Amino acid sequence: MRSFIRDVVLGEVNRVSGFIENIRNKKTMCFIVLKDITGRLQLTIEKEKNPDLVPLLDQLSIDCVITAEGPIVHSDYVKLNQREMYPTSIRLESYAQANPIVAPKGEETNIDLRLDYRWLDLRTDKNQLMFQTQSHFVNSCRKFLLERDFIEIHTPKLIGAESESGAGVFKVDYFDREAFLAQSPQFYKQMAMAAGFERIFECGPVFRAEKFASRKHATEFTGFDLEFSYIDSYEDVMHMEEEMLTYALKEVSQKYGKQIEELYGISLTVPTLPFPRMDLHEVYRELEQRYGYIVQEEEKGDLTTEGERLCARLSMDKFGHEFLFITGYSKENRAFYHMRDEHGVPCGYDLIWKGCEITTGAQREHRYEILKSQAEEKGLYTDVRFYLDFFKYGCPPHGGFGIGVDRITMLLFNEGIKESMFIFRGPDRLNP
Amino acid sequence: MRSFIRDVVLGEVNRVSGFIENIRNKKTMCFIVLKDITGRLQLTIEKEKNPDLVPLLDQLSIDCVITAEGPIVHSDYVKLNQREMYPTSIRLESYAQANPIVAPKGEETNIDLRLDYRWLDLRTDKNQLMFQTQSHFVNSCRKFLLERDFIEIHTPKLIGAESESGAGVFKVDYFDREAFLAQSPQFYKQMAMAAGFERIFECGPVFRAEKFASRKHATEFTGFDLEFSYIDSYEDVMHMEEEMLTYALKEVSQKYGKQIEELYGISLTVPTLPFPRMDLHEVYRELEQRYGYIVQEEEKGDLTTEGERLCARLSMDKFGHEFLFITGYSKENRAFYHMRDEHGVPCGYDLIWKGCEITTGAQREHRYEILKSQAEEKGLYTDVRFYLDFFKYGCPPHGGFGIGVDRITMLLFNEGIKESMFIFRGPDRLNP
Repeated sequence: MRSFIRDVVLGEVNRVSGFIENIRNKKTMCFIVLKDITGRLQLTIEKEKNPDLVPLLDQLSIDCVITAEGPIVHSDYVKLNQREMYPTSIRLESYAQANPIVAPKGEETNIDLRLDYRWLDLRTDKNQLMFQTQSHFVNSCRKFLLERDFIEIHTPKLIGAESESGAGVFKVDYFDREAFLAQSPQFYKQMAMAAGFERIFECGPVFRAEKFASRKHATEFTGFDLEFSYIDSYEDVMHMEEEMLTYALKEVSQKYGKQIEELYGISLTVPTLPFPRMDLHEVYRELEQRYGYIVQEEEKGDLTTEGERLCARLSMDKFGHEFLFITGYSKENRAFYHMRDEHGVPCGYDLIWKGCEITTGAQREHRYEILKSQAEEKGLYTDVRFYLDFFKYGCPPHGGFGIGVDRITMLLFNEGIKESMFIFRGPDRLNP
Repeated sequence: MRSFIRDVVLGEVNRVSGFIENIRNKKTMCFIVLKDITGRLQLTIEKEKNPDLVPLLDQLSIDCVITAEGPIVHSDYVKLNQREMYPTSIRLESYAQANPIVAPKGEETNIDLRLDYRWLDLRTDKNQLMFQTQSHFVNSCRKFLLERDFIEIHTPKLIGAESESGAGVFKVDYFDREAFLAQSPQFYKQMAMAAGFERIFECGPVFRAEKFASRKHATEFTGFDLEFSYIDSYEDVMHMEEEMLTYALKEVSQKYGKQIEELYGISLTVPTLPFPRMDLHEVYRELEQRYGYIVQEEEKGDLTTEGERLCARLSMDKFGHEFLFITGYSKENRAFYHMRDEHGVPCGYDLIWKGCEITTGAQREHRYEILKSQAEEKGLYTDVRFYLDFFKYGCPPHGGFGIGVDRITMLLFNEGIKESMFIFRGPDRLNP
């Protein structure tokens, strides 16, 4: 087996494999920079000493995949960790045509062409780091939850009824009838509560048939959703979320913080606990006082797009914090299944990070009669009847939230959504 | 906050919440068995001492959710851990109608009615244990892989071209065109190899539009798939899989083995390494010699359903092992993307556990020209053109496998597939 470039041993014969990142094939010498997922190594071939390698060297080009074997030696002249390999054998694993997305020097290839060849685009250190980070973030969240008696479940994405809002649902030909793609695991997370599972989470795809033109939306993305029982209020939900995010960001910072700083110039901040909390009316009051941002009274039940953006400044200026919990949205702007307090205000929140909403969370209404009337009020009774049944036979009080994994990635790296997904899906983008 | 019943402290005032599993409301006394996800507790109420509780007690029935507070005391007469609570307050969290899936004594409710009310069906200790175990199994596999430099990715389920075989694909209305639901993450796992990610896995839904009538199939299930680069042969893939499964089964056995034994009467076996390996022709030879099972020569390129079943006996009788790797399938019965050796035999395997196929694994063909001709041979060139492009610009040699999480669960607990999924999906089953 080959070893990772990270793990080669100086003074010994090693076997390495990777993509050719650069090759200078001169008359007497050939220099190759080989890249694998862990690093780079210079291969130096003196042609006179290795005449059998010459025919192969003449075939090689950038992006070819090779395996090379030979001693690793120290060299003061080599930039890459001052070490190089003198290969005694090289095997061509895979030949490469010319890379179609390389831009002329000083220019950048536009994102749509890059997405056409996403597998080439992902080969950069920056992109590989992005997905290593995403994996570590998600699995740190998992670790946090598993240690707290949560279990992970897998709910169906094919559903029999249009869920939640009825709008923006993809239809599927399902044998002799229609099925729909789940817009979120919301109903099934809650079904797990009615089943007495008490603490569950799920990480999986969610689907939105909406023609957004923003830099934040996709038609398919990865949701990280959790739900737990026997909460006293949505404060418990906010508390769980801030602790989980702080844990995961700390993990990410410890493992990848230095590399993110080097490659992206971004210094990760591990947030302090607790995250600041504000009521929506208080937010609007401060946005007006501090930044002169004025909003009509009738719009103040929800956070405007511009208001959301300004919250990046507000949470920094007022609290020195990147995160901001906002409560007190009006019931017209929240889902029917959010519990409401005695004044009719939904018992839920949004979490804003760097001026972008990353979560909606809430205590859910678990009492059948109230839930049913809230569904009727929004004209959804028929659509959600199967869901209402979950609450007829006893259901613990519970709450939860959902995070968009891709949106978190986007905000971590200060990129657009297209750049932050392994494969982006939009109304005009189904390939590759 | 309430405490888990598992964690209540004797001699102190505790607060617990759960479902009423049993209630005996007598003239002077009321006895309640309260169940949460961690255990059961008896609540004993002497009515004369707690007159204010009486009106509530008269409302309570099985499956109601309550919160109770009071001291926990030792009692020789109580079966449940010889302790009981004397509640000083009880709150009704959620009222329950009569459970519609309770069977008369000595009978069993049929599975279809149980699935109609899956959330009630899942309340049993057995079912809760099943999904705790599944979560632990999957997350043990993850842990094993993350420690070996794998990262977890999320590939799209909405795809632009009918994948793999062309058959059994669900169609989706995608704005003004058609999209398809991924039958597996195969192509995108391999794309990650072309992107130089080297070691990846994914756990997510896969979709099959097939009208199976077996106890093993579903139209949607959870796949656990991995792929890794720079293997020397498919032996490396088999090795990775046997190590991962052994690790995960050991973890499951340590955490839940005793409970599985108690509730299911199943004694989990942690397999020994390496798993036995046999060539398909050798399997048929032995099945004939040992059990008189005779198969026509032209069928011997694949394992028959009956042959698969008999492998449970064969692997036990010959090796004393529950698992069996089988290699040497004919190319007609394998996907076009499996690499083939110099005799045209696919470099892949199936893994059989207890007489049921749980995995197909292989080294993949990563050389563009050969892969293209293998796709053409199966008449798939047009459909998989986008996928073939992944191999034009350099791609490491690689291999991988996929496991069905639900099938593993099914085999672990010796149940059918309907019983082993959080929510089962079949041609006639889209609800709840």
